Amino acid sequence: MSNETIAILGGTGDQGLGLALRFAKAGRRVAIGSRKVERAVEAAEQVRKQVPEALSVEGRENADAVLDAPIVILSVPFEHVAGTLKAVRERLVPGQILVSMGVPLATAIGDGAVRTLGVWQGSCAELLAALAPEGVEVVSAFQNVSAHRLQALDAPVECDVVVSGAPAARRRVMDLCALVPGLRGVDGGPLPNARIVEAITALLIGLNARYKVADGIGIRLTGLPGA
Amino acid sequence: MSNETIAILGGTGDQGLGLALRFAKAGRRVAIGSRKVERAVEAAEQVRKQVPEALSVEGRENADAVLDAPIVILSVPFEHVAGTLKAVRERLVPGQILVSMGVPLATAIGDGAVRTLGVWQGSCAELLAALAPEGVEVVSAFQNVSAHRLQALDAPVECDVVVSGAPAARRRVMDLCALVPGLRGVDGGPLPNARIVEAITALLIGLNARYKVADGIGIRLTGLPGA
Repeated sequence: MSNETIAILGGTGDQGLGLALRFAKAGRRVAIGSRKVERAVEAAEQVRKQVPEALSVEGRENADAVLDAPIVILSVPFEHVAGTLKAVRERLVPGQILVSMGVPLATAIGDGAVRTLGVWQGSCAELLAALAPEGVEVVSAFQNVSAHRLQALDAPVECDVVVSGAPAARRRVMDLCALVPGLRGVDGGPLPNARIVEAITALLIGLNARYKVADGIGIRLTGLPGA
Repeated sequence: MSNETIAILGGTGDQGLGLALRFAKAGRRVAIGSRKVERAVEAAEQVRKQVPEALSVEGRENADAVLDAPIVILSVPFEHVAGTLKAVRERLVPGQILVSMGVPLATAIGDGAVRTLGVWQGSCAELLAALAPEGVEVVSAFQNVSAHRLQALDAPVECDVVVSGAPAARRRVMDLCALVPGLRGVDGGPLPNARIVEAITALLIGLNARYKVADGIGIRLTGLPGA
């Protein structure tokens, strides 16, 4: 399992790059995808420089990054989520897990990041599930994790990741979370719960502004068994 | 200030009773409101029994409980929120703060507590704001706090309370939170953010079921200054 590649589409962005750094540091193979292969290659070099012990970090065009990657994380701004999936969907195969970390922030239409848009399907994750090929499982995760904290490799991230989707698939993504110090995957139930988790990101962005927290505020659940 | 009464409409319910216990324990005067005065009186007796040092705990009909109470907490199930406000609104005066802790759970229409209803105004809190008399400030708070934890007086509650509404009013409710061990009031910004905070309750109810946590799971924000 640990030799399997994690693909991160939009891995050149702040949050995607942060996940690439963390998974590379955890000893996983990482494929960084971008619309432009040069940008992906550049981001991969940056990860290898910061994590010299990385097993394998490659930069590829999005449609190539998804090949042979059992888990594909979609880390592009909400307004590019549907287009990115459409650009790679022919390459996806049954059994692959597609992780939705997009949030329908109102920035997509020029309004503020502290508010969300209503999505017809209910959430970004459900939009992706409606567009994904049959047999590809969409799982919602990582929306509430600060990019700054992910990129600060020396410190634990200190954030719970509420993971929702089909049971077996969400379990695999919860296991991914456990690879990153300070991240904890929490069983968030069925995919439509992404509606709530995505909205929390807008709340956190507002809190970051009001409390002037540049590193990003995170969430923890209290009272979870075994915590 | 500490001699001012906190009125809790629906204070005979699990969560309202929990708040009554905690505020009585913190030395505040408490008025428990109910549709039926006998039930309110009974709940008040229960609070006085559990908190013998309580300054003043009275049981009243809802419309009487709001009199002379600078802060009125509305702790009734969502389907009774509008009706309860309408029953007391003639008695409310400018300057009073009305705290909305209702959550539009789908139980209101016979569906499950892990899902929410869409509210035309955006949230239970905004519905109340639309119905409240001019000059009465609606503040959203306490939705994510477990009734069990509130009632377990010997233990800290371990939950953050995201408080939203007009700045001065929400500051006063944040100060209320600080009276209860383990509760922390967090500046949740303008009232429409209640949409997100209310939905979190449905997520927590699902988590309680999946993790079999009878006491109720809470939330904490990480990275807040001064925490």
